[in-house]
Amino acid sequence: MQRRTFLGSLGLGMTAAAFGENLSISRAHSAEAIKRKTFTTNREDGRFQDTAGFLQNQMKINPPKLAFNPHMKKTEFPAWQEAVRKKLRDLLAFPEVPTQPEPKRLWIRHREGYQLQKWEAYPEPGCVVPFMVLIPDGITQSTPAATVMCFPGSTWSLESLVGEPEIGKKAKDNVKNRTDWKWQDNRMALHIAQQGMVSIAVANPATNDTDSPLRGRAQTSINAILLGRCYLGISAFQKAHIMEWASRQPFVDKNRMGVCGHSLGSEPADVLGVLYPDLVKAVVHNDFCCNWIERTIVMNGEPVSDHHVIPGMYQWFDATDWEASLAPRPLLFTEGGRANQLAKIEAAYRLNGAEDKLKIYYYKKYSTPADRPFDFKPIPEGLTVEEYFQYANVDAPKHVFRPMRVVPWLKKVL
Amino acid sequence: MQRRTFLGSLGLGMTAAAFGENLSISRAHSAEAIKRKTFTTNREDGRFQDTAGFLQNQMKINPPKLAFNPHMKKTEFPAWQEAVRKKLRDLLAFPEVPTQPEPKRLWIRHREGYQLQKWEAYPEPGCVVPFMVLIPDGITQSTPAATVMCFPGSTWSLESLVGEPEIGKKAKDNVKNRTDWKWQDNRMALHIAQQGMVSIAVANPATNDTDSPLRGRAQTSINAILLGRCYLGISAFQKAHIMEWASRQPFVDKNRMGVCGHSLGSEPADVLGVLYPDLVKAVVHNDFCCNWIERTIVMNGEPVSDHHVIPGMYQWFDATDWEASLAPRPLLFTEGGRANQLAKIEAAYRLNGAEDKLKIYYYKKYSTPADRPFDFKPIPEGLTVEEYFQYANVDAPKHVFRPMRVVPWLKKVL
Repeated sequence: MQRRTFLGSLGLGMTAAAFGENLSISRAHSAEAIKRKTFTTNREDGRFQDTAGFLQNQMKINPPKLAFNPHMKKTEFPAWQEAVRKKLRDLLAFPEVPTQPEPKRLWIRHREGYQLQKWEAYPEPGCVVPFMVLIPDGITQSTPAATVMCFPGSTWSLESLVGEPEIGKKAKDNVKNRTDWKWQDNRMALHIAQQGMVSIAVANPATNDTDSPLRGRAQTSINAILLGRCYLGISAFQKAHIMEWASRQPFVDKNRMGVCGHSLGSEPADVLGVLYPDLVKAVVHNDFCCNWIERTIVMNGEPVSDHHVIPGMYQWFDATDWEASLAPRPLLFTEGGRANQLAKIEAAYRLNGAEDKLKIYYYKKYSTPADRPFDFKPIPEGLTVEEYFQYANVDAPKHVFRPMRVVPWLKKVL
Repeated sequence: MQRRTFLGSLGLGMTAAAFGENLSISRAHSAEAIKRKTFTTNREDGRFQDTAGFLQNQMKINPPKLAFNPHMKKTEFPAWQEAVRKKLRDLLAFPEVPTQPEPKRLWIRHREGYQLQKWEAYPEPGCVVPFMVLIPDGITQSTPAATVMCFPGSTWSLESLVGEPEIGKKAKDNVKNRTDWKWQDNRMALHIAQQGMVSIAVANPATNDTDSPLRGRAQTSINAILLGRCYLGISAFQKAHIMEWASRQPFVDKNRMGVCGHSLGSEPADVLGVLYPDLVKAVVHNDFCCNWIERTIVMNGEPVSDHHVIPGMYQWFDATDWEASLAPRPLLFTEGGRANQLAKIEAAYRLNGAEDKLKIYYYKKYSTPADRPFDFKPIPEGLTVEEYFQYANVDAPKHVFRPMRVVPWLKKVL
């Protein structure tokens, strides 16, 4: 499997620029003039002899059974929403576990305007998960505050989320390869705490302090699948455990909790929103809006990285259906995405009379409709990742956590 | 994930030789002197902070729920066998499909002593699967014959199975890289037909004529998982469909059918044996006996190739449990394997009073007990693949289909 993750694509600046030129050329011709390699069969019965083509065809002819149907009646929405919740929980294979110890605080540090706490949680037997809590000054037991669970992008550390110096070698290298503005902006939990909300930072499994010198994340993800789990299922279960603990803490106003994910972290944020409607009052998806099935099809079956794989997901729904199922709760997209998918989610919010609860920002490059020539145009098959990003209004090198969009929005909705 | 498949290891001759020397050195010291890197935790609570270590621990502390228990009573065996069958069918996600067209014969060629037929099957919508049938001269509707379904190793072609010249470029390259004796021996379907049995050859999905110029097998396997399927599930479903068709053909004695797999092909052979007790009267596992969970653990979580991944399998059983569940039907291992696993399978046959139905050959290098110093010794963690093969009595460069062992055995038991 190719390991072309979204974050990996951040290194594609040069390629993207080159593609920009190619695109100008191709625009000069008609769309039909572009010759793309796609799965085809020249058999009269339309069957595929190549296994990959057969599976591509399966994806095309079998729409997911629980996809959001924009023509659904409002009265049908809650039952569909519940079906999505149930199936998602099922596919993510949350384990049934005996009572575990409560999370333990390891240390407290005082910073200007807030307190930084390091904790660890024990979500299931054999497992410990470090996390950080930031409590703005003035928050006490008698004044619990709005609280945001913060989940970073792919390999970002807890330290990066709270603005502390990196500890691990990989994390140091990670920062070295990022521009300063990106590092500054990605301090998600710090930005949120500085605006008076409690923030709780939990990183992605198998990264930095949960990484192993023996096995990488891709291999770990496949082992999870062999065990009947999956990377996102493990990630979301750990984060849910910490969120449930948080909701019982005196400094947390459990009626004003939100989840905020950047890039890979936006997956568990979405998932917690779907699975915990009573606890999660707002969801930040700091990434573009992506339908993975559509993406897989138009990129000729290029699969997602192992840590994105949820066995069986394509039979049931896609991330954009989970997102639609969040209506009418506040939901923010910070980096636009595919117009058809965003329109589907908008339809779910409209059905619930909650259009104002869905907020969509775009990458600067794609900020006006005129900047998005591919919106609602048919998307062809045989796209490269660079081409797909054009259709999805993604400016990969500018992919970052966006405090200026996220924090004011969270303050408003929580 | 590393793509170190078993067949890939055939190229390891040099490394294996080098290891042989190292091993002599290490034998001179005590076993304890070997310092291996393994997953450890120095936490008092025994929990793992690294996600990979946590999963490794999960594998170690949670034995598969449907593993064969050698202390089981004979009366309990059929219910366990049925539970394994049901769960295996479930995990392999055989699709429910509407009635499909019957297989179609494309051509017939006459060869000395047998007829070679090319067919194609239509196991499910959108899918066509080529296969070959070899009918020895003299077999007619009034004299149906014992029939063997033949499944090759990893990327071997239909042509290679029946001894015809290779057609595809990849298959030609494949042969180019093999020694002549290996190519001669691997003509499984031809060897079987030459001894008077009908043979039906079906290759592995996403190889040669089912390969795609757009997507490789590893990526195709992951896409299958996203769709709720898996590579072995697709492979076995296709082969089962053809086997069921074969059982209705007049030249096939449906009371004398067997399955014969080499290397990767031994997986669907095992599986068809488990799932079709009424049709499959004998199973040839032309490979070593491998417990994948044990292998994953001792190799520090090194995962299997994508095309070996069955989501959730490690929760329920391993290949050696399927094999145990075949008792009392005839089962042949041609290349030995792990002593503890073979002993487990022997226990299942003994329980059923059928020790004589289980036949185990070893690699020449490991043919006597004295040649197998690691049998029933504790297997340490932190092994390389070369070290694991020593514990499993595998002489990788000699891995091949073994007509001299397989064909006489099949003639005897069918």
